[in-house]
Amino acid sequence: MRQYLKNDPWKIIEEGFHPDYHQASESIFSLGNGKMGQRANFEEQYSGPSLQGSYIAGVYYPDKTRVGWWKNGYPEYFAKVLNAPNYIGIHLKVDGEALDLFTCATSDFVRTLDMKKGLLTRSFTATLSGDKKIKVETARFLSMTDAETALLRFSVTPLNFSGKIELTPYLDGDVENEDANYDEKFWNILETASSDEEGHLLSQTKKLDFRVAFAMRWSINSRNTRVTAAHNEVRSDIAISTSVAENETVVLDKFVGVCSSLNHPADQLVTKAREKALQAQTAGFDKMLRAHSEKWDNIWLHADIKIEGDVAAQQAIRFNIFQLNQTYTGDDERLNVGPKGFTGEKYGGTTYWDTEAYCIPFFLATAPAHVTRNLLIYRYKHLQKAIENAEKLGFTNGAALYPMVTINGEECHNEWEITFEEIHRNGAIAFAIHNYIRHTGDEKYLEEYGLEVLIAIARFWAQRATWSGDKQKYVILGVTGPNEYENNINNNWYTNKMATWCLDYALEALQVVKQSNPARYAVILEKTNFEEASERKHWQEVSSQMYFPYNQELGIYMQQDGFMDKEQIMASDLPVAQRPINQHWSWDRILRSCFIKQADTLQGIYVLEHEYDTETIRKHFDFYEPLTVHESSLSPCVHSILAARIGRLNKAYEMYLRTSRLDLDDYNNEVHEGLHITSMAGTWMSIVEGFGGKRVHDGHLFLNPIIPEQWTAYTFRITFRGRDLEVRVDQKSVNILSHARQTAELRLYNQVITIEPGASVSAALKPDFYA
Amino acid sequence: MRQYLKNDPWKIIEEGFHPDYHQASESIFSLGNGKMGQRANFEEQYSGPSLQGSYIAGVYYPDKTRVGWWKNGYPEYFAKVLNAPNYIGIHLKVDGEALDLFTCATSDFVRTLDMKKGLLTRSFTATLSGDKKIKVETARFLSMTDAETALLRFSVTPLNFSGKIELTPYLDGDVENEDANYDEKFWNILETASSDEEGHLLSQTKKLDFRVAFAMRWSINSRNTRVTAAHNEVRSDIAISTSVAENETVVLDKFVGVCSSLNHPADQLVTKAREKALQAQTAGFDKMLRAHSEKWDNIWLHADIKIEGDVAAQQAIRFNIFQLNQTYTGDDERLNVGPKGFTGEKYGGTTYWDTEAYCIPFFLATAPAHVTRNLLIYRYKHLQKAIENAEKLGFTNGAALYPMVTINGEECHNEWEITFEEIHRNGAIAFAIHNYIRHTGDEKYLEEYGLEVLIAIARFWAQRATWSGDKQKYVILGVTGPNEYENNINNNWYTNKMATWCLDYALEALQVVKQSNPARYAVILEKTNFEEASERKHWQEVSSQMYFPYNQELGIYMQQDGFMDKEQIMASDLPVAQRPINQHWSWDRILRSCFIKQADTLQGIYVLEHEYDTETIRKHFDFYEPLTVHESSLSPCVHSILAARIGRLNKAYEMYLRTSRLDLDDYNNEVHEGLHITSMAGTWMSIVEGFGGKRVHDGHLFLNPIIPEQWTAYTFRITFRGRDLEVRVDQKSVNILSHARQTAELRLYNQVITIEPGASVSAALKPDFYA
Repeated sequence: MRQYLKNDPWKIIEEGFHPDYHQASESIFSLGNGKMGQRANFEEQYSGPSLQGSYIAGVYYPDKTRVGWWKNGYPEYFAKVLNAPNYIGIHLKVDGEALDLFTCATSDFVRTLDMKKGLLTRSFTATLSGDKKIKVETARFLSMTDAETALLRFSVTPLNFSGKIELTPYLDGDVENEDANYDEKFWNILETASSDEEGHLLSQTKKLDFRVAFAMRWSINSRNTRVTAAHNEVRSDIAISTSVAENETVVLDKFVGVCSSLNHPADQLVTKAREKALQAQTAGFDKMLRAHSEKWDNIWLHADIKIEGDVAAQQAIRFNIFQLNQTYTGDDERLNVGPKGFTGEKYGGTTYWDTEAYCIPFFLATAPAHVTRNLLIYRYKHLQKAIENAEKLGFTNGAALYPMVTINGEECHNEWEITFEEIHRNGAIAFAIHNYIRHTGDEKYLEEYGLEVLIAIARFWAQRATWSGDKQKYVILGVTGPNEYENNINNNWYTNKMATWCLDYALEALQVVKQSNPARYAVILEKTNFEEASERKHWQEVSSQMYFPYNQELGIYMQQDGFMDKEQIMASDLPVAQRPINQHWSWDRILRSCFIKQADTLQGIYVLEHEYDTETIRKHFDFYEPLTVHESSLSPCVHSILAARIGRLNKAYEMYLRTSRLDLDDYNNEVHEGLHITSMAGTWMSIVEGFGGKRVHDGHLFLNPIIPEQWTAYTFRITFRGRDLEVRVDQKSVNILSHARQTAELRLYNQVITIEPGASVSAALKPDFYA
Repeated sequence: MRQYLKNDPWKIIEEGFHPDYHQASESIFSLGNGKMGQRANFEEQYSGPSLQGSYIAGVYYPDKTRVGWWKNGYPEYFAKVLNAPNYIGIHLKVDGEALDLFTCATSDFVRTLDMKKGLLTRSFTATLSGDKKIKVETARFLSMTDAETALLRFSVTPLNFSGKIELTPYLDGDVENEDANYDEKFWNILETASSDEEGHLLSQTKKLDFRVAFAMRWSINSRNTRVTAAHNEVRSDIAISTSVAENETVVLDKFVGVCSSLNHPADQLVTKAREKALQAQTAGFDKMLRAHSEKWDNIWLHADIKIEGDVAAQQAIRFNIFQLNQTYTGDDERLNVGPKGFTGEKYGGTTYWDTEAYCIPFFLATAPAHVTRNLLIYRYKHLQKAIENAEKLGFTNGAALYPMVTINGEECHNEWEITFEEIHRNGAIAFAIHNYIRHTGDEKYLEEYGLEVLIAIARFWAQRATWSGDKQKYVILGVTGPNEYENNINNNWYTNKMATWCLDYALEALQVVKQSNPARYAVILEKTNFEEASERKHWQEVSSQMYFPYNQELGIYMQQDGFMDKEQIMASDLPVAQRPINQHWSWDRILRSCFIKQADTLQGIYVLEHEYDTETIRKHFDFYEPLTVHESSLSPCVHSILAARIGRLNKAYEMYLRTSRLDLDDYNNEVHEGLHITSMAGTWMSIVEGFGGKRVHDGHLFLNPIIPEQWTAYTFRITFRGRDLEVRVDQKSVNILSHARQTAELRLYNQVITIEPGASVSAALKPDFYA
């Protein structure tokens, strides 16, 4: 854990340059606009430790490096996100001397990420040789209004001398991935050019031939400049030098267009990128920034959470919301949310079940319905590949197993215990369909896309469950549950539970579509070769005869078969020096211990909470939480929500703190690798579902707010079935203001409440509602 | 399965060149002398598919390529055997045209591996351009009398013309491993030289700096030669050309010295290798071959098995015995027996539990005691590293876990389910000590080396077993048994059984040494910090309170917890197209099936057979064998032995066939990768322990011979406690001839028999002894 950033409600601020934490800062101050993203690498030369990272959404490399033992059915490749050509670079020389913050003295250094505006700035004074002092100010953003445009501003003021300033905006294709074996390079540079006005570079990824063009233009506030353009095989430079008097400020703006072959024909990329750069130059930095910030205003209007009386918590929740919205904007169904977004190489920029289990609840409540719908369609479009994936594993008849890790629908993870066995992801993907429909009321989605996915997933479960002669029940053998600290276990309760849920929901969905749209129903049956009578019967049988491990004595569902054979040791008894255990223990030791990485049985109780009464939830929480080491970023939020649900406000707050400032305070000493983007949605859930007690069930919205004593008040805004509601909770009361155009109905502490458009309703806080 | 080799009692013969099977032939015709080995690559240029392989014992490369997910506690590297510089090369040009069997027509091709002499020969007629025909004869061997020497003979006879023959013996350091990622090279060449008389090359492995020098000299039967020596940075050539008349034969001999830094100071390597080449040249090919073949005569005297009436079986068993003796000669305790010996890259040339479980029984009976003793000392010398390995996994107090795969005592395999969980190897390593002592009577071994190893292994088991509150027994969770088609299972019966055996044997060994050598006992206690009272008590408790999964209804020990939850399908019901399942099924499907890769519960019953009566063995065989797919080369032999034990002679013979000609007939279509060296010992066991019914128990040798109806007779020779006995079994009788110098005692069909030196004993065969 490390705290060097200043608290502020809207900004992330580093005061004084911390070179030792620079790689962490590069993660934390990351920028993104859904189409591209970048770590907060410096524009100018920097010789200190740095993880260079600039990523283009959807562009990846299929790494085929193999070592050791390849198992039958393993994927062809591991997808990795690529560090793209550097387009943010602006070198600075002062009287021929290059600025390098790693070697020169600085003062008054401030780095700021303005989350309200979506702007990254720096300001500092640097001392160069001969005691020459310059003041530097930089600003940059990736436009949210034109996502193929990046804008940068670089200002230099000589403070105690007059001299020659040379600023060199450049494009550099000679880049690397840190995770490359043998320092392999992943880009070919096909074309470079430079002139006094502009430069460009056309790059191509190896193997898959993604192409990305980068074009730059510039403007400067100085009249007397000398421009020297140059380019070689991999880069393009435009050196602009000018004489600057003491205290005079030279301001260079760099306008970059970035166009990829995902969005344009390959032969038009350079033209398009040059157009983008020119458009940005024509509009100018300030105007583009205003448009960009207005877009952010609109995001904040719906997604913001205000926390009064706790600025650290306020800053943290906004940081989480900001980064999520930088990562995914929801207008391209080919894209998704990687666990590290655009902030690092780890996890390869690929999609996990995090999206369905964590991000979708966030986007459902804070963004227009099409954002979630596009995330669902992403999976729908991968259905055929999920069926092929299941076929590789021996399944037949259109059963689908969605990949654990994917970028384009193909599995690209190669650990058998995950790839082949962490099959509960199929449950999350099915549940997301239900979740979308219950939030939006968009029942048509089942007909259009959902039912086909649900049939394929149900078929998977029906085949994956096998009959145990011993137990006289259906069992699911050889799985890994959400708690990845158990592998190849039998009858993971969560998995078995989600399997039956999927079977039941698919059966229900069949009925719904059959009634609502018989013609479409017939089409789907034909398309899927669905044997209505026999398959339904089999699904019902498997669902109703499923085995669930249960300990009579304790009255607890067991995480898996044989769980009570383990030595039962509390996580609190673990020596601090051995935590996190995944950095100190070998894998077998972790596996045979009782320690739980992240919510597993409790994840099931969270997802299907309505099936359990408070006492049951409490019993399970009290059994499992003390065994849980929360070594997944996805763990604390679920525990925070459940703790709130059973009236353990202190525990809920403790867990909330672990999730909300995970990256800002670098709890696990790993933020230098990138941010935990998907778990940030869990932080939002901790507040809205945990403290706010938001639930959706049977078509109704429920709110049961409580508030930590550390906060004066908190306010969040959610959309439910088109009704836009603003909920403010303080230590005494709950106020709900409707921004909806229609009457809104909800259950507040289980009381039905209706609110007319523009009206608000207040009620006394019931702090002991769940106690 | 593929049969293109001719049956012969002493030779492996390929008649007619089969380029499609050439890589398989390269494996099958491999040569070795315990210090180096090589695939049967051609001496001359060959442009067809070939796996070049020449290996120096003990020389390896620590590959650190990583991809994907590295688990805490994984080894630093994966050891891989290196394809060494090519020293067998002799290029041939006839009137300037290179001989290449892949492109030119051949007739009368015969390739022969003479197992009696240890000699590889080829003979063929090749037709070159202009219809020039030449007869070529080659011969080569790796000397068993001077293991740093290789000798080659290359004869050429123009059959229908006179012309210029150019023979170029060479040394080539520009070699590759097929398993290299990115075509990485693993050798640096430090020095090359050539003169008319000799050439040499000094090579160095990357990273670990093993050095190997190769020197060559030559002789020719022609007086009128022109010699052109040349060398570049990586190779040394000596081109010898001569004019040859029709039907005149030119014979070139190449003498090679190979010296490695394992055996000589690095700065003397070139000198030593040159000496070796000169010595060989001085002695000459024929004299060296005679000495070499005499050494083989002596090996065969003790190790041969004669099978009368079945030449395919005769050839097969000799092939197995031959290859085992080529791989390991037992005079260097730093070396061991890799699963593929010197015949391929797979398994990296490293040591597995195969050595203790399969090879040691073979060497114990057929080779002098020091051969096995050196294999045991190999592990003794690695004890400290095994303790460190266990520490990495969280064990304390001098507990040892021997590596699953090693070359120098360090674990170098990186699959957690094997590396961390296939811990039964510790059992095999302990049992080998017992096996050695019961065969040789060398009780002193316990004092000198054995007890320390046994203490460390017992400590491991005592810590690895944990108390189950649920079962009120000690359990061993999270293991992989010998059946690697189950991973991370709980209470694998074989593992639990071997754990208790190790604890009991360690307790017994403590008593033995305490009584036989109290002073040494005190030293060992001090050295190991052994807490006599408390550790003994704990071991007794764990051993006596161990849990063994057992199915009351069936009266069968269960392979593991939950085994009866699996769908019980017979291996015979598997479609042929799906076998071997490890080439057709994904790993999860294999894991959750009931199919057994190799003997597991039955392995335990085999090892500790004396604890079980025939009826119990039969019940377990009948339960497990039908579920077994024998997809490990180590499986059929154990089943063959047990089938013989329960009177199932036909089954025993069927299983014997699967093991004995596994490579010759390429059952699994993989012999091109190399031979299954370690399982060859299992073939020997199938005859001697299976049909011969050889057992050692309570200090006595037991023989209960039976004979397959397909054979007229079979004869094997075994050494037991220094008594050298020759056993011949025909369809009616058993004859035992003693070559021992003292009276030999044994149990024949449980009757005590004594045989005086030079005498023999006959008895009627009891074919129904076990029926």
